[in-house]
Amino acid sequence: MSDQLRLGVIGGTGAEGRGLALRFAIAGAAVTLGSREPARAREAAAHLRRQHPQAHIEGASHEDAIAQNDIVILAIPFVHAGPWVEAHGRALAAGALVVDVTVPVVFEGGRPRFVEPAEGSAAEHLRARLPEHVALACAFKTLPARMLQNADVALDCDEFVCGDSPASRQRLAALVERLPGLRPVDAGPLEAARILERMTLLAIMLNKRYKSHDARFRVLGV
Amino acid sequence: MSDQLRLGVIGGTGAEGRGLALRFAIAGAAVTLGSREPARAREAAAHLRRQHPQAHIEGASHEDAIAQNDIVILAIPFVHAGPWVEAHGRALAAGALVVDVTVPVVFEGGRPRFVEPAEGSAAEHLRARLPEHVALACAFKTLPARMLQNADVALDCDEFVCGDSPASRQRLAALVERLPGLRPVDAGPLEAARILERMTLLAIMLNKRYKSHDARFRVLGV
Repeated sequence: MSDQLRLGVIGGTGAEGRGLALRFAIAGAAVTLGSREPARAREAAAHLRRQHPQAHIEGASHEDAIAQNDIVILAIPFVHAGPWVEAHGRALAAGALVVDVTVPVVFEGGRPRFVEPAEGSAAEHLRARLPEHVALACAFKTLPARMLQNADVALDCDEFVCGDSPASRQRLAALVERLPGLRPVDAGPLEAARILERMTLLAIMLNKRYKSHDARFRVLGV
Repeated sequence: MSDQLRLGVIGGTGAEGRGLALRFAIAGAAVTLGSREPARAREAAAHLRRQHPQAHIEGASHEDAIAQNDIVILAIPFVHAGPWVEAHGRALAAGALVVDVTVPVVFEGGRPRFVEPAEGSAAEHLRARLPEHVALACAFKTLPARMLQNADVALDCDEFVCGDSPASRQRLAALVERLPGLRPVDAGPLEAARILERMTLLAIMLNKRYKSHDARFRVLGV
């Protein structure tokens, strides 16, 4: 089993993290949900395994999820992501890849608003706080969390990938390709996250306007 | 012929304006290209008519293009759009609709960059300069100009529409639907242009990366 893909999912008790953990486990990965409260992570893992008995999902502490995996999906709300990276970044293995799925969108009176980080995007905000020995790339920012969680529904869309190096992007693109129905689209350097994170806001707005939960994107012509 | 759609296209001698003028004329509209140099506009119109003899396209001055039409597509570069609106906005008829297709993207050493207007977007920049009696809505911001010009190629994508009122958006959505292969997607108020204009930058970046000229978007789930 040494070739089995191993993934840590931080924030695996939230909607987006749970959905990604489930989809990757169904695709054959061994997934560790990392939480500040390992008991909650174990509970969430057990819940997902009941839904999909073949899924290889365990719950653990943040520290264990980091120690056991060299690809870590950071699926906690953006406001917690910077502090998480500052607290745990140095514990990540050399060459580890952090996959940032966060978006700096807040809801004020039910209305979503993009709150631009000083660095321009959540991705750049996190890169500025990660140690040099760790790589950062982004995907799954524009994918509806609710849709992710229903593993029977085909995603059937494009997934924009950006990252701090061509190698980071290639590594994440290969990961995206593991999920049926997703095509990775290479959006280039981390700066592209300034656009992609705003597209999440657009998807939220379109969902509201069209009474949908599934607004997502495809790029034609590439 | 009183029911024939009539459109003014300002900047109809540029790639985007020429493409829109041609596509709308083929779809049955009577189009007036407006230019600071009417002779150039007449020449461009004659050129388009040679390509498509059935197209109803004339060249004129800015003033005549405004006087003859109550829908005016503003297809000049963003840097000229603010001054144009300040010079000509008051001459537009009450209830006229200005269709903003501009994007505040500049090229520096061949590299495209989004230059955020103080108002947040080109659309809001122009709205702040237009008189109250004129409506403003946006579309065609993310559509590749080169593709527009080749009227034999199906556009086959979604076209985001935003505007200063639901009525403006509906009016522009109906216009978008005139072009075969385009589906209008209602992105809401003008503020949405902050996202849409950045998506143009994304399309430019994807074209470069994937050696294409046709990168464009579709929204699934709505």
